[in-house]
Amino acid sequence: MKRILIIGIGAGDPDHLTLQAVKAIAATDVFFILDKGEVKHDLVRLRHDLIEAHARQPYRIVTVDDPERDRITPAYAAAVEDWRSRRADICERLFRDELADDQVGAFLVWGDPGLYDSTLAIVEEIHRRGSVRFDHEVIPGVSSVSALTARHRTGLTRLTRPVHVTTGRRLAEEGPSADDVVVMLDAHCAFADLGDEYDIYWGAYLGTPDEILVAGPVPEVADRIREVRAEARARKGWIMDTYLLRKTSR
Amino acid sequence: MKRILIIGIGAGDPDHLTLQAVKAIAATDVFFILDKGEVKHDLVRLRHDLIEAHARQPYRIVTVDDPERDRITPAYAAAVEDWRSRRADICERLFRDELADDQVGAFLVWGDPGLYDSTLAIVEEIHRRGSVRFDHEVIPGVSSVSALTARHRTGLTRLTRPVHVTTGRRLAEEGPSADDVVVMLDAHCAFADLGDEYDIYWGAYLGTPDEILVAGPVPEVADRIREVRAEARARKGWIMDTYLLRKTSR
Ligand SMILES: C[S@@+](CC[C@H](N)C(=O)[O-])C[C@H]1O[C@@H](n2cnc3c(N)ncnc32)[C@H](O)[C@@H]1O
Ligand SMILES: C[S@@+](CC[C@H](N)C(=O)[O-])C[C@H]1O[C@@H](n2cnc3c(N)ncnc32)[C@H](O)[C@@H]1O
Repeated sequence: MKRILIIGIGAGDPDHLTLQAVKAIAATDVFFILDKGEVKHDLVRLRHDLIEAHARQPYRIVTVDDPERDRITPAYAAAVEDWRSRRADICERLFRDELADDQVGAFLVWGDPGLYDSTLAIVEEIHRRGSVRFDHEVIPGVSSVSALTARHRTGLTRLTRPVHVTTGRRLAEEGPSADDVVVMLDAHCAFADLGDEYDIYWGAYLGTPDEILVAGPVPEVADRIREVRAEARARKGWIMDTYLLRKTSR
Repeated sequence: MKRILIIGIGAGDPDHLTLQAVKAIAATDVFFILDKGEVKHDLVRLRHDLIEAHARQPYRIVTVDDPERDRITPAYAAAVEDWRSRRADICERLFRDELADDQVGAFLVWGDPGLYDSTLAIVEEIHRRGSVRFDHEVIPGVSSVSALTARHRTGLTRLTRPVHVTTGRRLAEEGPSADDVVVMLDAHCAFADLGDEYDIYWGAYLGTPDEILVAGPVPEVADRIREVRAEARARKGWIMDTYLLRKTSR
């Protein structure tokens, strides 16, 4: 039976890799890499570095050009669903043609595979289609949320209280839904309109040599984050940032 | 300067340890272990095993009897605050007396140190008091939330949607606050009253040889989880379980 591993690799630091992930990489015959284009080249390179460091048997890397996503349509969810299904078509073909019956194929997934990542959904879709028989396993990883709070040396949850994890889009539409909210996938600095009752713990390129951290009351640091973010994004060509909003009693 | 490391060790599987955590353990002179009593002995043993496997220099283990927490009072938050402050007293003394000026002390924290864990708050309190000078660093880990979703091979977040992380107590008081809710620290199976619009992905002793997984629509599996949970808890003397509730369109 073919086996597919969905391996969480942590959020940027090669040492975020778990021993379980190291062993999984060592057991892999074929690595599938969805290339998201030149701009995110650093992310592809980290995967290559991890493979080179930890692979322990003859292996192949199969790179696929990631299909373009419709980034214009307002129907965001539908566009992503459609994108997913086209990625499933590509991967289905790879599972069939690039992997022998007793071989192990793997995806190296940024952060933790459970958090805003489509790889597992794609693999499930191929499994449901039933045209290629395989077994699959998920290997958890350090998420960017854990990396963020660790680098800021702050807790994610406060004693007995909930924490919400959401997207920049939702935050812009709905405002903070709890006293502690983590925001991911925010391309538009949706925090900027919050009043002074919130502190922000912001981090970009967490775990990498480019890491930037800014923390403080939102009105005091919002402009600085916007500037730093725009400058870094222009310089590197891409950015990944996330933040924790925490209501304080001022 | 003294250094204190707060090291996330993952949620039960010794291979959840990250390479960063392995290096941090190797750099540690004194390990501080708060012993929570005989019943959770397995958890203390895992820490000893990890130290034995990864320590790389002469080290000492200092075990402290964890002060008793008032588990009767309805003032849960106040009782935990008081407990925290008494733990800070103990650790302050240890940082002063058990660690030389250039040495590294470490706490091995279950899962990720940011998630419902008081170690960081204790260390911060000691830092604020200012009577012992030290620097501290947090090393993120694989949380039980990531372990849960990985073992169930399901995502934590669904496309563009938020996820809430909360406690059993809150769920009992407020019901599910979102379509996707992770519940931790639930001693009373607070999921049992939910209607059939929720699926549950439940896991106990995740990542350990005792791991138990149950998933399905709440009304169909709630009794089974309750039975399995009571039986396991009686047999082992303690249990750690967590679950994801997911509203479905049935
Ligand atoms: C598609 S999601 C994938 C998240 C990933 N699965 C995880 O567990 O972190 C990408 C988002 O994660 C966050 N992110 C991931 N890695 C990051 C890093 N190293 N620094 C800052 N944010 C990061 C950003 O919010 C980014 O928009
Ligand atoms: C005090 S909190 C610590 C959480 C930890 N810092 C983490 O990141 O998972 C303890 C709660 O975490 C959950 N938990 C931790 N480890 C677990 C495991 N191996 N299996 C199931 N639940 C676990 C349970 O809900 C438990 O009540």
